[in-house]
Amino acid sequence: MRILVFNAGSSSLKFGVFDLSGQSLAGAQERLRGTLDRFSSEGCDLKLADMAKTRATPRDLAQATAYVPKLLAQAGLDGFDAIAHRIAHGGDRFDRATRLDPATLDQIRALTPLAPLHNPANLSGVEMAQTLWPDVAQWGVFDTAFHLSNPARATTYAVPQSWRDAGLRRYGFHGTSHKYVAHRAADALQTPLRALRLVSLHLGNGASACAIAGGQSVDSSMGLTPLEGLVMGTRSGDVDPGLFGFLHREMELSAPQVEDALYRDSGLKALAGVADMREVEARAAAGDAAAQLAINLYAYRARKYVGAYAAAMGGLDALVFTGGIGENSASMRRRICDGLEFLGLRLDDDRNATVALGHRAAPQIQAYGARVNVLVTQTAEQLMIAQEVASALRVARPAPARRLPVAVSARHVHLDRVAVDALFGAGYDLTPARPLRQKGHWSAEERVSLEGPKGRLEHVAILGPLRSHTQAEISRTDSFALGVDAPVRQSGDLSGAARIRLHGPAGTYDTNGLIVAARHIHMSSDDAQAWGLSDGDMVDVSLDGAARGLTFTHVLLRVSDKATTEMHIDTDEANAAGIRGAVEGEIMGDVQITQRHG
Amino acid sequence: MRILVFNAGSSSLKFGVFDLSGQSLAGAQERLRGTLDRFSSEGCDLKLADMAKTRATPRDLAQATAYVPKLLAQAGLDGFDAIAHRIAHGGDRFDRATRLDPATLDQIRALTPLAPLHNPANLSGVEMAQTLWPDVAQWGVFDTAFHLSNPARATTYAVPQSWRDAGLRRYGFHGTSHKYVAHRAADALQTPLRALRLVSLHLGNGASACAIAGGQSVDSSMGLTPLEGLVMGTRSGDVDPGLFGFLHREMELSAPQVEDALYRDSGLKALAGVADMREVEARAAAGDAAAQLAINLYAYRARKYVGAYAAAMGGLDALVFTGGIGENSASMRRRICDGLEFLGLRLDDDRNATVALGHRAAPQIQAYGARVNVLVTQTAEQLMIAQEVASALRVARPAPARRLPVAVSARHVHLDRVAVDALFGAGYDLTPARPLRQKGHWSAEERVSLEGPKGRLEHVAILGPLRSHTQAEISRTDSFALGVDAPVRQSGDLSGAARIRLHGPAGTYDTNGLIVAARHIHMSSDDAQAWGLSDGDMVDVSLDGAARGLTFTHVLLRVSDKATTEMHIDTDEANAAGIRGAVEGEIMGDVQITQRHG
Repeated sequence: MRILVFNAGSSSLKFGVFDLSGQSLAGAQERLRGTLDRFSSEGCDLKLADMAKTRATPRDLAQATAYVPKLLAQAGLDGFDAIAHRIAHGGDRFDRATRLDPATLDQIRALTPLAPLHNPANLSGVEMAQTLWPDVAQWGVFDTAFHLSNPARATTYAVPQSWRDAGLRRYGFHGTSHKYVAHRAADALQTPLRALRLVSLHLGNGASACAIAGGQSVDSSMGLTPLEGLVMGTRSGDVDPGLFGFLHREMELSAPQVEDALYRDSGLKALAGVADMREVEARAAAGDAAAQLAINLYAYRARKYVGAYAAAMGGLDALVFTGGIGENSASMRRRICDGLEFLGLRLDDDRNATVALGHRAAPQIQAYGARVNVLVTQTAEQLMIAQEVASALRVARPAPARRLPVAVSARHVHLDRVAVDALFGAGYDLTPARPLRQKGHWSAEERVSLEGPKGRLEHVAILGPLRSHTQAEISRTDSFALGVDAPVRQSGDLSGAARIRLHGPAGTYDTNGLIVAARHIHMSSDDAQAWGLSDGDMVDVSLDGAARGLTFTHVLLRVSDKATTEMHIDTDEANAAGIRGAVEGEIMGDVQITQRHG
Repeated sequence: MRILVFNAGSSSLKFGVFDLSGQSLAGAQERLRGTLDRFSSEGCDLKLADMAKTRATPRDLAQATAYVPKLLAQAGLDGFDAIAHRIAHGGDRFDRATRLDPATLDQIRALTPLAPLHNPANLSGVEMAQTLWPDVAQWGVFDTAFHLSNPARATTYAVPQSWRDAGLRRYGFHGTSHKYVAHRAADALQTPLRALRLVSLHLGNGASACAIAGGQSVDSSMGLTPLEGLVMGTRSGDVDPGLFGFLHREMELSAPQVEDALYRDSGLKALAGVADMREVEARAAAGDAAAQLAINLYAYRARKYVGAYAAAMGGLDALVFTGGIGENSASMRRRICDGLEFLGLRLDDDRNATVALGHRAAPQIQAYGARVNVLVTQTAEQLMIAQEVASALRVARPAPARRLPVAVSARHVHLDRVAVDALFGAGYDLTPARPLRQKGHWSAEERVSLEGPKGRLEHVAILGPLRSHTQAEISRTDSFALGVDAPVRQSGDLSGAARIRLHGPAGTYDTNGLIVAARHIHMSSDDAQAWGLSDGDMVDVSLDGAARGLTFTHVLLRVSDKATTEMHIDTDEANAAGIRGAVEGEIMGDVQITQRHG
């Protein structure tokens, strides 16, 4: 599959051609990559792959786009399966590669207030490409999409509702880069991405940190705009919001004036007088105190984000450096990592000093025996954009109607032998009272109580048969009645599960197995085969018969020979959907590709 | 010693009377404590210690201050040694309790742009008190003072120099509270505060986190203003600075309008409709999704700060909760701590659920065997303010002239036996070339090189005799030439020291002992006794004979029978002071009290 990629900015056009086969990035071939920029009345600069800069005739973005077919012809490249456009802001709508048609283009246009400079430039690129290649499908890949999996606790600002209604929330950027390096790191570590807690540090002229747990972005240092977070070349990163009022009163600066200076005249440039880290490092080594402070501040803020994201994920398995500074500055990597030994992170100084990149290398630079892996790799946003579109094209076939029953799980516990002994007496046998839909499963006559720091839940059902680990499944609202932050987990996955005390007639039992059960689908192997689905796929399910129409996204599929096909949701989800009695759902068109490659 | 404390705000007056003996907080007695607030034409509320609210006649702050002598007379309290005023903002000038005279009051008045509401109210309180008690000394204790020990990397925003010149930096608040709970925690743990890395979470209507290493604040979540940092009752905490531009363009809101909403209509109030956490928790338990999100966000942001500050300090020894929410919400403490097991932090649920405070209790709630201690204690800002002033009064006697020579230490290493063997050959003996001023110490004829990720330092001096641990002492500028973030440490304290490779004629040796040597004074026991100083005291030293006049603050005193009295500074410090040849210094009036109590 051959994909032409465009990244049209306000002052540059980047483009690339990639051949992709299979669902993995490893086999992808880059055929061409280039940049046209510094437009003026005398033309512009042209940079192709690793060749030296030359001059070209285009004087603006439109002429540059029109110039690309000539470069493609010179390279003998044609027969594109799709044209993929990098779009800066997808708002809260676009969480995956999306076919660009009049409706989706209107939606992107409506997001302009969130990215007033970038989205209009991206859209011009799309329009030009539609004119030049009218018969090739145009797709958009969004820099914000990867972060749409962030939970509300990470995306919400504690500001008035009317502002949040206007779209003021944390979106995050550099999503394609963070996603790519996460997959690249998992490949290099020969570990499934879904088993890793990663922090990705993209340290370029713009810079951001991303916490990636189980392959999903869970937090990101850029927020509503690319101003928030780390110190950057000319951008401030985090500041006190009280700064605006102070500058208004003391220096009579308006919000737009302050914002402009935070974008263009802040960061390394403000601290050290120069935005390029190589120059800052040279000055610091020569004794320049301002440059020394700039480096200290840059590293300190990055290190604090690594610590904060370890806290967000409950620990850290790997740290990945990318972007110009992340790739090239051994001393900055060292400064960021020093002091993180408490996380189990230690660098090997020789490996760190001799990092060799190129050909998508991803060398590891942790010390022998260190618990946290540290990797360095070049980012490859264009390649990732091409791969996203190629994957989407592959699964965008019409799917059969796939209907299944939806069951509501009230709060319940699964007990192991030790727990039954403690709660009901040694050797006690639970009494099956009612069979469940999944074969061999039943609910017991006996009940238990759950006790948390804030309150108790009485008469909680016990489901049999006994398991090897005790586990309590409650709704989100239950977790607030108990006063415990129970994580959302698939049944049986007790990583990071919360502690809870069970009370029975014979005594109490403390367990680490309290979770909010993630919605999921049990599916027989026959149904899975007939519907073109596999164990571990994430699907969207639309409910009908529900009083309030609702589509559940990111539903995990668990395929087994013994399973009876049905979807399980909890009482909060049932309430949200207004479900009272029996309900059916339908698995929607696309299978999400997040879990597929890498 | 009897101190009367005032905290005059814009809408309330708090006051207290404390009797203090000795230098420890433990023996302090609270004689009276009260609040006058909700002023109106009909009078105000009066709350005394733990008694029920009553009504009183004062209709404004001035009348309230004038009303206090009546309450003191009723309680039979007089004979004050000083009146201590809580001052909100001390800028970068006031790092300790300070006698208020016309000059210092002018300096405080000049800081009004940094605290436009608070400092003027504090100053009115001072003026009233001067009128009522003209013969009693007035002192100021500053909410920002504790944080003035924060390093520049924590206090600097990456914004234009002209803004920073206008005073735009991170100051931090709640300093008196954080300092008190740090001392209280160290007492409860029976561990010297200087040996602890603490995070203090002050979670009240305002909320802030503070990282405290070795008894000094090293970072704090509030910055220029009390808006930055954690989610609060009505304040937003951290937001994207791009928010101002967005709201300006989309909703035509000015910077002052946005700021006002971030102070008054944000935080829990914006998220859950109510600012009081008890009400938010009740609503969440009843299924209110907005209240549930508010709690999640509040806990998540606090947890990330704990992780960030562990990264800032290289680990964590204790976490302390204080403020209304920190003291009273077992479920919020649990939510913040869950997920921090990777730090070695685990709560004991029973202890957490049954915290009993009062009488300055500081119960520990960590699980048995957990590496990180977790404590809960009521804050006692007025008591701490009284203690600061009492300590200052005690040491504010005229001191004898205390003059001593100042020596400049160039970069050097101390080697152990293993290092000498590796660098010069097994059993090699170094050749003493030149005696040093401290008896029995010498510099060797041999030299070594240091190698870091960025560069090498050649011909580095070796000081003898051999030590039990190899240690390299360099200047800050050297650390940038090497490309390593070497921590500032007292010689012999290698906690968190950086790794470095030494090169000798026979081979290389890697050590974890690279530091930037903290300035310090060696002092003979005789001199120390004559000058009223003790081992471990922190003093200020003013240099004369230096081309650029300079006072070094926070200089550690190391007293020993064998020592010859002299001060050691490094080459960067010598350059900053313009020192060329031999120089003398003088120890200034006050010994800093930070290190004394607790």
